[in-house]
Formats: sequence, structure tokens, C-alpha cells
Amino acid sequence: MKRVLILGGGGMVGQKLAHRLEDDDDIALTLHDIAFPEGGAGTDRRIGDLSVAAEGAALAAERFDTIYFLASIVSGQAETDFDLGWQTNLWPMWHFLEALRAQHRASGGDYVPRLIFTSSIAVFGGPYPEKITDEFLQSPQTSYGAQKAACELLVQDFSRKGFIDGMSLRLPTICVRPGKANLAASSFFSGIIREPLNGQEAVLPVPDTVRHWHASPRSAAGFLAHAARLDTDRLDGRRALNLPGISCTVAEQIEALRDVAGNNVVALIKSKPDPAIAKIVQGWPRDFQPDRATSLGFKAEGSFREIVDVYIEEDLQR
Amino acid sequence: MKRVLILGGGGMVGQKLAHRLEDDDDIALTLHDIAFPEGGAGTDRRIGDLSVAAEGAALAAERFDTIYFLASIVSGQAETDFDLGWQTNLWPMWHFLEALRAQHRASGGDYVPRLIFTSSIAVFGGPYPEKITDEFLQSPQTSYGAQKAACELLVQDFSRKGFIDGMSLRLPTICVRPGKANLAASSFFSGIIREPLNGQEAVLPVPDTVRHWHASPRSAAGFLAHAARLDTDRLDGRRALNLPGISCTVAEQIEALRDVAGNNVVALIKSKPDPAIAKIVQGWPRDFQPDRATSLGFKAEGSFREIVDVYIEEDLQR
Repeated sequence: MKRVLILGGGGMVGQKLAHRLEDDDDIALTLHDIAFPEGGAGTDRRIGDLSVAAEGAALAAERFDTIYFLASIVSGQAETDFDLGWQTNLWPMWHFLEALRAQHRASGGDYVPRLIFTSSIAVFGGPYPEKITDEFLQSPQTSYGAQKAACELLVQDFSRKGFIDGMSLRLPTICVRPGKANLAASSFFSGIIREPLNGQEAVLPVPDTVRHWHASPRSAAGFLAHAARLDTDRLDGRRALNLPGISCTVAEQIEALRDVAGNNVVALIKSKPDPAIAKIVQGWPRDFQPDRATSLGFKAEGSFREIVDVYIEEDLQR
Repeated sequence: MKRVLILGGGGMVGQKLAHRLEDDDDIALTLHDIAFPEGGAGTDRRIGDLSVAAEGAALAAERFDTIYFLASIVSGQAETDFDLGWQTNLWPMWHFLEALRAQHRASGGDYVPRLIFTSSIAVFGGPYPEKITDEFLQSPQTSYGAQKAACELLVQDFSRKGFIDGMSLRLPTICVRPGKANLAASSFFSGIIREPLNGQEAVLPVPDTVRHWHASPRSAAGFLAHAARLDTDRLDGRRALNLPGISCTVAEQIEALRDVAGNNVVALIKSKPDPAIAKIVQGWPRDFQPDRATSLGFKAEGSFREIVDVYIEEDLQR
């Protein structure tokens, strides 16, 4: 029986992952977050705030086999609230890794948990090559991206030292997110598909020529489940990975929606330029060549149409 | 009159820089460090420990125009003492930047100091291309490198937000260092030139096929002085720079020494393999193509022979 902890288990990706892991009889699952949705996945739910160092230390003391570190505030919020961003997206990682190291030491070196951190393609900044390769520099242009990149460095060094067996997964933008819009600057990428499919108007704050990098929530859960089983020796000491996804423009997203749902649904998308959002998104990656992750067996959708289909299948309330 | 602060002003590079800036009548210079050499550069010397957050805050309150952040423990020490490494090489940067931000805010946004951070080529990790370009990923394989890379992310984000006007300079290995050997894993690169020129035996802990990236202390001081005058808009939002240097093998270093000083001096170099040093050095960069820094006017030596000559001219006691 593997004991698995999901930090940030109340969030959208955390819940998708929890649903997936619950099907596995060999896994005992614990979720931690500041809040949980009613219903949803997970029976062992812990409510607490990881920005309190003692909270992470208490969890570390339970010596879970596998720990998913998904807890984070989103990009838009980290950009508008500088203090909250660093305090939420960097320091809890440091304190938690230190707590895991204390457990490692106390165990005489036996305890080396697998830790999987959800990083982001926001660790990159332009100008970009046509496709971002696995050797492209990290030069974040948002606080969120800088915080994710800093956490990657911690995961890398604690792993290199053998205190943990960690990995950072640079998730594509997760699309289509179920539920409500959030404060992420990327929220509209989901909104323009989700809201129309639910008969509601959606706001498009950027030109439809914007190209971006997507994967479904189902793929995200799949990436995370796959990472827990990976032989980390195969990472050759580079513990951050660019993951596969679909590169498409907003116009191509909209055409996929039209294919699935028709013109009347597409007509619910209203263009309303927002320079603040456009400026953040302009700095984001558009396309990748994620050779390492692909060769390590990570898989995403084959087209944006598939991503729309996944949403309809898994999350659309009918 | 520009008020300039050098954090780590008692160290070798700090002293070289201080000597250089003292010649400038438009600069009022303050040095800060945990200790200073007897004699040497700097009349306004402050002794204190930056790992005490209040120490940095008091310095920040003086609102220097230009701040050089050179304070650091060296790579070998950061590798053997994990706690000391992170506590010395990362947290003081965070606390100091936060103190500068408080000054920025208190000034109503007027105070935006130029901050120049001495990062290192240790932010990179292999496998490497033949020459490391300005777009190569950061994947440090030492705690020192991870700490430097994390500091770069802080400098980048505080600058992007306009709290400071910062820059990170990834110095080549500084060679030939005057004075005694230190705990840096790179110390022998200087030792094999310096000790023989001083009539002493030197230990070579790695094969002479090891290739590495060097610049003289004079070039280091030149880089730092140049960075203070640079228009940071020209950095296009990527505030960490790979600097120019000389790529050569240990055998080529030794041949340069032979050219200058003859066979008897070279005979003082004794090969004594040290697997721990060899392992660290094996992970280090060997050659760069630092196009951005070159186009921004940063200059290093043209050959390792010149580097030996600089040592003889500036530092050899005769």
C-alpha cells in the first residue's frame, strides 16, 4: 500500500488526480488544502495553510511515500499581490522540503519520498524560438513564473543531495478547466470553450491570433500519475521537464469548438480586449518540442478538438 | 557624487573592484563584509553579517545609488555544508531585496537602486553543447549553482517590478586569484599558476584535459564597473548575462605558464587526483558564446597567457 499526499488537493488538478488515484487499490490517499469542494474526491481531507511552516512539518512527519506539491496561487494573483505571491508560491516549498529533509535525517537516510511539483511553462520568457526545446533558458516574465522556477531549483538541489526524489513538471496551460473562471491570466483559454458550451457568454481578452500550449485536466492527472512511477535515474540529473501538449491559436480553439458545437455556440464568444491580460499572455510560450518527456512516456491529446471532447465527456453538466 | 556600496567588499573581487572605483572622484565608496584584509582598499568599511536580516535593512536605509552584491560563500563550502550554503547564499539576498523594496515604497517610488549581483557559470549543468549560448537552460549541479540561479530569479523579478534596477553577471572562474587557496572547488585553477610563480608546489587534482572558462580579477572588476554604467533597457528583460572569458584546458594553462616562466616553474605542479573535486569540476561549463555580453561592451582577456601576465603585473609579490 502506497501512502500518497496531495498538497493542493482541493484544487481542480488536485481533484482530478485524486479521482484517478482513488481507483487504485494500492494507494491510500490524503488530501491537504485550505478548502475543499463539497463532494468530490478524497475521504482523508486535511484543512490547513502550508504558509505556516509547522503545518508542512506535521505533514512531513507522516512520511508519505509520494507527495504531490500542487499548492499555489495563480499567475494573475501572484502578479497583482507581490507579497502574497512569494509567500505562497515559494516559502512553503522551502519549509516543506526542509521538513522532509529532517525526516530523511531522522530515518538514518532511509526515508526519501518521491515529490512531484507542478511547475509551469511560465518559467519561460520571450523572445522564443519557433519551438521551445528542452535546453531553452528559464527567464520568467511574471512573478508566478519566477516562483515556479525558484521552486524547481529547490526540488533539484534537495533531490541531487538525496534528501528527496523529486521532479518538477512544467504543465501546459490546463484547458478546458471545469467550474468557474479564476484569477489566472490564462483563465480565458478555458472560458471561451466552457462558457459557450454551457450556454453562457464568454469574454475573449486577446486577439484570436494568440498561440498557446494546452493540455486537458485528464492529461494533467495522467502526467502526475505517470511521474510517480518513473525511474528518476532516467532524468539524468535534470529534474524539471517540459511536458507534451497541443499548440494552437485562439482561432483554432474556436474552430474546434465550432466543429463540436456549431455556430450558435461560437457566437457566445465576445471579443473584449484587455491590455493587462494581453501583456502577460504575450510573454508566454507558444509551442514546444518536449522530446525528453515524450521519450519518458508522458502523453497528451493529439488535437485541440480532443481537448474539447475531454471536457464534454468529463465535466460538462448536462 | 555617486554613493556605491560593495557587499562582500572584503573579498578578493570586492577589493579589486574597490581599488578600481577609488580612482573615480565621482564615487563615494562604502564596503561591507564580515572581515577585511589589513590594508587594502576602502576607508568606509562596515563589519557585519548579512545573514542577519536587520543588517541588510540598515544598509538599505542608506539608499546607495549603486549596490554590488558580491557576498557569498564559495562552491566547495556550499556543497559540504548544505545549511550554511542556503542560509548564506540565498536568504540574505531575499531579505536585502525586501529592504530595498521597502525603501522604494517609502520614497514614493523614486528610489530605484542599481544592483549588480555576481552570479556564476555554476548555474549551468551538463550535458553541454560545444559552446554554451545565451539561451542555454540553467540546470545547476551544485548547491552553489542552485543558490546563484535562485538569486538571479529574485533580482529578475524585483527589477521587472521596478523596485530595483538589477543585473546578474555570471562570472567566469576568476583566475589567477591572488593570496591563498580557498575552499572553492575551482581553487586549483589559480593555484597551479600562482603557487609555482611564487616558488611553491601546487597540487593539480584533475586531469590536464579538463577544459574551463576563465577571466582575470582585473576583468571581473571591469565587468562590474561596466555593469553600473549600462543602460539596462538594453537587457530586454533578461537580466542575467553570460560574460566573456577564455576557454582553455589545464594543459593549455600550464603551457601559458611555461611560456612566461619556464620549465622549472612548471615542474612545481604536482598531479594528485582528487575524485571529489574532479566530480564537481566535471559538471562545470567549458566554453561559451556570450554574444549578448559582448555586444553590450563587456570585455575579457584574449588568451590565457594574458591572464598570467595580469597576475604578474597586479599581484605577484617580487
